[in-house]
Amino acid sequence: MKIEGKHYRTIWSDGVSVFVIDQTRLPHKFEVVAWHYVEDAAQGIRSMVVRGAPLIGAAAAYGIALAMKADPSDESLEHAYELLIQSRPTAVNLRWALDRMSGLLKSLSPSERPDAAYREARSIADEDAENCSVLGEHGLLLLRQIWDRLGRQRPLQVLTHCNAGWLAAVDWGTALAPVYKAFDAGIPLHVWVDETRPRNQGASLTAWELSHHGVPHTLIADNTGGHLMQHRMVDLCIVGSDRTTAAGDVCNKIGTYLKALAAHENGVPFYVALPFSTIDWDLQDGLKEIPIEERSSDEVTRITGKTATGEVVTVMIAPEGSRAANFAFDVTPARYVTALITERGVCTASAKALAQLRDR
Amino acid sequence: MKIEGKHYRTIWSDGVSVFVIDQTRLPHKFEVVAWHYVEDAAQGIRSMVVRGAPLIGAAAAYGIALAMKADPSDESLEHAYELLIQSRPTAVNLRWALDRMSGLLKSLSPSERPDAAYREARSIADEDAENCSVLGEHGLLLLRQIWDRLGRQRPLQVLTHCNAGWLAAVDWGTALAPVYKAFDAGIPLHVWVDETRPRNQGASLTAWELSHHGVPHTLIADNTGGHLMQHRMVDLCIVGSDRTTAAGDVCNKIGTYLKALAAHENGVPFYVALPFSTIDWDLQDGLKEIPIEERSSDEVTRITGKTATGEVVTVMIAPEGSRAANFAFDVTPARYVTALITERGVCTASAKALAQLRDR
Repeated sequence: MKIEGKHYRTIWSDGVSVFVIDQTRLPHKFEVVAWHYVEDAAQGIRSMVVRGAPLIGAAAAYGIALAMKADPSDESLEHAYELLIQSRPTAVNLRWALDRMSGLLKSLSPSERPDAAYREARSIADEDAENCSVLGEHGLLLLRQIWDRLGRQRPLQVLTHCNAGWLAAVDWGTALAPVYKAFDAGIPLHVWVDETRPRNQGASLTAWELSHHGVPHTLIADNTGGHLMQHRMVDLCIVGSDRTTAAGDVCNKIGTYLKALAAHENGVPFYVALPFSTIDWDLQDGLKEIPIEERSSDEVTRITGKTATGEVVTVMIAPEGSRAANFAFDVTPARYVTALITERGVCTASAKALAQLRDR
Repeated sequence: MKIEGKHYRTIWSDGVSVFVIDQTRLPHKFEVVAWHYVEDAAQGIRSMVVRGAPLIGAAAAYGIALAMKADPSDESLEHAYELLIQSRPTAVNLRWALDRMSGLLKSLSPSERPDAAYREARSIADEDAENCSVLGEHGLLLLRQIWDRLGRQRPLQVLTHCNAGWLAAVDWGTALAPVYKAFDAGIPLHVWVDETRPRNQGASLTAWELSHHGVPHTLIADNTGGHLMQHRMVDLCIVGSDRTTAAGDVCNKIGTYLKALAAHENGVPFYVALPFSTIDWDLQDGLKEIPIEERSSDEVTRITGKTATGEVVTVMIAPEGSRAANFAFDVTPARYVTALITERGVCTASAKALAQLRDR
């Protein structure tokens, strides 16, 4: 997508180094950083320089390529795999991308591995961009239907949580792909953007990327969505997924479940957009089976922003000595999900419908 | 309640000036400010130097006293009433306290008014402290029952939203009065404190006052409560109310509704603690009839905190040019409220039960 008129992806390579947009600096500073070693990639994933399930997959793939460039041995491949798999615990794409890289590379001789690794990482990135674009087209049809049903009288009101835009993927995004496609197709719309505490991906990333694409939007505190839905100010919710069970339970940014409950209660459709690679076919019951990442309490007690003089500083917003807990994700049971939007089409959140899409 | 071992109320007077704890400075700075004119009181309510439904009522009463000291005429009384009633739109205690002051003062000659006004304001403050204490005793019984039912095996897990502690009242608080009473009675408990964006009253005030009383607590992002309830990590929710309809609908800080939905869905009791003065007997349907205050978008896009060097600064946390909306309250329909805890006793959230408590 575009930043100041220039097309960018979130990750790319010149065949030697890997370049990513540093998402911890947004929205105050746009900065591209270079990764030279697999350790840079692991650290970048861990510290959320890159985040979002699809992008984490592509970043891990490029991490393997960096490791192969330095040392194409079996030991190096195994070490890189272990290092990267531990960088974030929730996103299933991480394992998916690593397994795909590792499966291919193991079948090759060490001398063939570096080139093949960069090629495969590039393929994973290209496929992700293409999948998100196709997913966006499927979502566009859905948004158009809702807009038609509402009589095309006023802009379509969309609510999203966290960032599942192009910054969370390689391009287009998941939840926001249908929004961009609809906007580009001339359907008037407006997005309510949950700020998404504690890391504020909504305020920092979603608002920023919607701004750059010119999509009308309003930032709100995470507490607000229920009130908006009670008052018919939201026509649909659309979010991403970090991990989806075979039965359609959705593990996404903490707070997603609360919005799904409010949508369910108020008759607002609740869509989850996801590439097939986020589906964990081994899992049935998301609540019981998905471990929830706990992150540093500093993310709750401190916040980074820009002062009136333009300096970016981190401030403490809690009393000294109060403990904080930071669960990063929650699970929305399939029964609250109106439909899943994937690159293979739209389906209900059920084991049967997902398996049908997979096997068709 | 106590701060560093010394007993404080949130508001008091020496018969001339009025003193309040400046709640916009907490948790980083404890500061008492003096009000000399009714305009100080109106500005203090508007800018949330004092906030919380019960405290707003007492503050408005003292505001009238300040006006009577300066000029005890009918015109002055009317002007003070108008000025104060417009300072916050939602809290019904504001009107209740102003009507009570104005009703009394109109029946007196101007020369009698200043003394009577200070006396009556002091009565309103004393009654509020007493009501909150009694409400706390009623709530204590409820908490003890739940703790007994759970087998007294582990600390009782309480979740609260916003600040309805002693800082929101004159003393004791509403939602936190039962917590303090239970803690003082030796029932082990732990409070999950919603930070309560956008103004962070949970992080700034609830965590701070629980700390000073020694009550174990953990600060969480507002997005977290649903996940905790899904995983049986919350035994009960308890919140305050800014305005309650005759039918038991509760208007409280934005986000309350989302927690009530999650509690309902997960079989967690959801209690609302309120002095009778927050009940608006003229209202039936909270969703349709209660106007929701919209506050400045700056409260969403900026946040105040303390830097590493101890300086308190305000930082921008959203991209330049992204709009924000700031609805301050939402309405939780009575059907999601397990019971109301009042100074007259505990009752179900229904017109019949409330009327019975009122008329008994």
